[in-house]
Amino acid sequence: MTYLVNDSADFVDESIEGFVAANADLVRRVHGGVVRATRTPPGQVAVVIGGGSGHYPAFAGLVGQGLAHGAAMGNIFASPSAQQIYSVARAAASDAGVLLSFGNYAGDVLNFGIAEERLKADGIPCRCFAVTDDVCSGPADKAGERRGIAGDLTVFRAAALAAAEGKSLDAVHDFASHANDRTRSFGVAFSGCTLPGASEPLFTVPESRMGVGMGIHGEQGIEEVDMPRADDLADMLVDRLLGERPNDNQRAASPRVGVMLNGLGSVKYEELFVLYRRVSQRLEQAGLTVVQPEVGELVTSFEMAGVSLTLFWLDDALEAAWTAPATTPAYRRGGVPLEGEPRDADDFAAIHEQAAPPSSEASRSDAAGVLAVIEAIQARIEAEADDLGKLDAISGDGDHGIGMTTGTRAALAAARRAVEKGCGAGTVLTRAGDAWANEAGGTSGALWGLGLRCVGTAIGDSDSVAAAAVVQGIRDATDAIMRLGGADIGDKTMLDAMQPFANALAEQVEAGTCLREAWRHAAKHSEQAAAATAALKPRKGRAKNHSEKSVGHADPGAVSFAMIVASTATTLESIHEDVT
Amino acid sequence: MTYLVNDSADFVDESIEGFVAANADLVRRVHGGVVRATRTPPGQVAVVIGGGSGHYPAFAGLVGQGLAHGAAMGNIFASPSAQQIYSVARAAASDAGVLLSFGNYAGDVLNFGIAEERLKADGIPCRCFAVTDDVCSGPADKAGERRGIAGDLTVFRAAALAAAEGKSLDAVHDFASHANDRTRSFGVAFSGCTLPGASEPLFTVPESRMGVGMGIHGEQGIEEVDMPRADDLADMLVDRLLGERPNDNQRAASPRVGVMLNGLGSVKYEELFVLYRRVSQRLEQAGLTVVQPEVGELVTSFEMAGVSLTLFWLDDALEAAWTAPATTPAYRRGGVPLEGEPRDADDFAAIHEQAAPPSSEASRSDAAGVLAVIEAIQARIEAEADDLGKLDAISGDGDHGIGMTTGTRAALAAARRAVEKGCGAGTVLTRAGDAWANEAGGTSGALWGLGLRCVGTAIGDSDSVAAAAVVQGIRDATDAIMRLGGADIGDKTMLDAMQPFANALAEQVEAGTCLREAWRHAAKHSEQAAAATAALKPRKGRAKNHSEKSVGHADPGAVSFAMIVASTATTLESIHEDVT
Repeated sequence: MTYLVNDSADFVDESIEGFVAANADLVRRVHGGVVRATRTPPGQVAVVIGGGSGHYPAFAGLVGQGLAHGAAMGNIFASPSAQQIYSVARAAASDAGVLLSFGNYAGDVLNFGIAEERLKADGIPCRCFAVTDDVCSGPADKAGERRGIAGDLTVFRAAALAAAEGKSLDAVHDFASHANDRTRSFGVAFSGCTLPGASEPLFTVPESRMGVGMGIHGEQGIEEVDMPRADDLADMLVDRLLGERPNDNQRAASPRVGVMLNGLGSVKYEELFVLYRRVSQRLEQAGLTVVQPEVGELVTSFEMAGVSLTLFWLDDALEAAWTAPATTPAYRRGGVPLEGEPRDADDFAAIHEQAAPPSSEASRSDAAGVLAVIEAIQARIEAEADDLGKLDAISGDGDHGIGMTTGTRAALAAARRAVEKGCGAGTVLTRAGDAWANEAGGTSGALWGLGLRCVGTAIGDSDSVAAAAVVQGIRDATDAIMRLGGADIGDKTMLDAMQPFANALAEQVEAGTCLREAWRHAAKHSEQAAAATAALKPRKGRAKNHSEKSVGHADPGAVSFAMIVASTATTLESIHEDVT
Repeated sequence: MTYLVNDSADFVDESIEGFVAANADLVRRVHGGVVRATRTPPGQVAVVIGGGSGHYPAFAGLVGQGLAHGAAMGNIFASPSAQQIYSVARAAASDAGVLLSFGNYAGDVLNFGIAEERLKADGIPCRCFAVTDDVCSGPADKAGERRGIAGDLTVFRAAALAAAEGKSLDAVHDFASHANDRTRSFGVAFSGCTLPGASEPLFTVPESRMGVGMGIHGEQGIEEVDMPRADDLADMLVDRLLGERPNDNQRAASPRVGVMLNGLGSVKYEELFVLYRRVSQRLEQAGLTVVQPEVGELVTSFEMAGVSLTLFWLDDALEAAWTAPATTPAYRRGGVPLEGEPRDADDFAAIHEQAAPPSSEASRSDAAGVLAVIEAIQARIEAEADDLGKLDAISGDGDHGIGMTTGTRAALAAARRAVEKGCGAGTVLTRAGDAWANEAGGTSGALWGLGLRCVGTAIGDSDSVAAAAVVQGIRDATDAIMRLGGADIGDKTMLDAMQPFANALAEQVEAGTCLREAWRHAAKHSEQAAAATAALKPRKGRAKNHSEKSVGHADPGAVSFAMIVASTATTLESIHEDVT
């Protein structure tokens, strides 16, 4: 599907115009395509590439230092005409002549061939080189008849380096040919594409199927199979390419390969990285050293969904070409190095979960009580999760029950680990809070994590749990949730159950009531306040899931808060010792 | 649609793993995200960015020299947890503290805020800055409540430069805030997106409609309208952003702006360039100087189709930040300059169509006859186009009639221009051939262009047209078409009508027959040979449009060749003078 069009007949022309406007520092437009913004130095062979449009960054995006001197640009998926190629080559050529390089397609071979004859007739030395990296488009013993796909880039890089080094036209041609001999690609497609102005796709792939070896213009591949898992696809691609390892590389002690994992258009970067993860593992297992992997869109097919994997079997000369600096609109390598010292493994040691911080025996003893509280909370939330979800679904996305379940499970697991490690009560609660926030995510996870952390910090690991410290921790938690959560009392959030609880608890404890009694009393306040949120209207615009539909129903966050403090009240009753 | 998945629950984790494997020279993985591969130097504030996953290159792709020191990565479209942010910030921080920067969303504000408190509690200086560039997400007088979209990049760039210069945490924060004040973005969406593992899209846009101001997670925008033409969309985007030009820029003599035209996922580069063409024109018309425009994917929304335009109103300090070198996985600027002298307009003068080359009066006189031949050919092809198309449709894509019509029309127009300019007969034919190849494209266009060029070259502009020169030219054309077209006699192509014609013509002329007679005789041979191609089978694998279905039908290329030589025979009859 193409969205941004004026008249489809003008699409390619307008696209080139916009491309040149966006990259005026690097390229200039000429009839038939683009050339570098600088003249090819005398004595340097010009590398002129080209092909149909619709493959960006191929071919115009690859014009610049370290890559091509010019690109001839045909219509969408159509070879440029000989005249266009001739024109670009004339503009790019110095006295040293021109290497024309392109993918091996009948139309390109014909038109570049005609352009070569015209350039020679003008006295400009010229040779053609057609790239043939696609292993699925012909048998290995007829490799010269194969099509060119993403492997274009490795061949262009080789030609560019030889040209920049001042090599002769024949030497540039032969080095490009050498790179081509050591480049193999394997592509698959998951969808077709629709050209600008067309009402029907140019070609299609059935849903949940994959065209194995399908070409970048929809050319028939080897077979069609069910869409595999990402890792299985990686295995398929790697296995096939390892099967075509060049003979002269078989004995290499530590083989080095350039790698390209190319997205054909609609596959997202995040997906390519999932695939590359396994590709990288497999190449490592095969004993190969990967040099400068490229994961991204290098040769596309309009909005076709699909990928290709290219292996570029390096020798020293090819590695120099592959890693040479480049500055083109779409391909920039080398240049500004990272500042600062390299990191080593020690850099990250401090971030891993630490051992138990120092704590008193009293605090470690209280930690068992904290764990019991969290166990009870977790059980209560687990039992109520469905109802919380239903309540949330009235006005929101219904995930409150799931979020609270995930969070309390994570909190309980972390609290158990902390107790096992001999942490004090404060640290047990802090780690439980961090785990809650980390695993549950979302607003409620973040706020519960924050709240538990505040209480844990106030309790600390030095002394027995004191009622005053608990009161202070819950006050801190209420303040922090108000400040960082951005909600006020009356906005129909958990705060509407929390603040009455915090106030009642503080009042009772300050009046000398023991924590167990004070908590039971405050929990009742909280329960009433949670129920009363049914009458409130949510504040507009704060959270995406709040809507007017919630009026008449209590806020799920307030309800779950009241549940948790009620459950805690029950647990405190069962703990023998009381806290003042 | 997501294609490359193993288990959707592992998608983000595996994607980060692959990303780090692909960019091992630049980044290291830590709990919660990634940091640069080098330590933040002492005294340098670390800029730690982050947000949900699914926005690549935001946020991990923007970690490196000239941009962030680390990125915290949440689940798809979900804020990272405070713990993740804290962990990344701890790994990135030197003694100078951390600026946390992110888009202004409730979940991010909450979690980055909590992380800030934890970092400060650890004694690490820390401040938060939320980006608010999206003009559609709130009124201008409440700009601080707006969401952050692609403008993240300008703010991160500013923070990075201030940090690299050794500025204090407060100064880095304030410069980021200054950049934010001068950054405005406007986004539109043409489709929704579907998260990995989901069976339904997260949100949708009806077909042929556009969500104006729709957010990068599908947040409601201003309105929904019919999909506009590309230029009209450019106008909409530019007009709105020019309406929010900062007050302190209104009086600038020559205002300079950084520009980002950002693709949200499914829009192709070719389309972005079509849109940028008009954006660039409009900004120029408004008297603005565009500095380092960026056209591409900078902040995506998974595979959502849509774009955003960002204007970054520069002052000297901001321009330094915007144009500073950068080396990150997805954003590389500066570095290797182009070699060679800059081009100027003269470089391209030679490529434009030249004036008439020198010619004899005799040749100029014969040019009229050449023009008459081309006129007759054009009329004949025009009349037969439908039948040629139908014949081609039997085994191919049916475009032979259209291609020949386009080509002969272009040839005729070019021949007329050449005659008007006073060209000799050879040049008229050469230019006609070039125009044919250029306009018609495809294989037949290229071959006819080649053929006419061969004959034109043989005839030349010096003498009257000689029969021997014509014979030589047609022989050259046949050889060239065989060599460059890659077909042999019997492959069921135009050659099967052309070679008998060329042989018969040569035989007759060499025997002393005048050209008119020889041509008529040879044309009959050609017609018979074209008809005889019905018995041939096409050579397999050469051209995609040849199939077995053609057996029993003549080859359209051979038939149109025979038509053209027959039409020429008739024209030669009508030309008074004869040629020997």
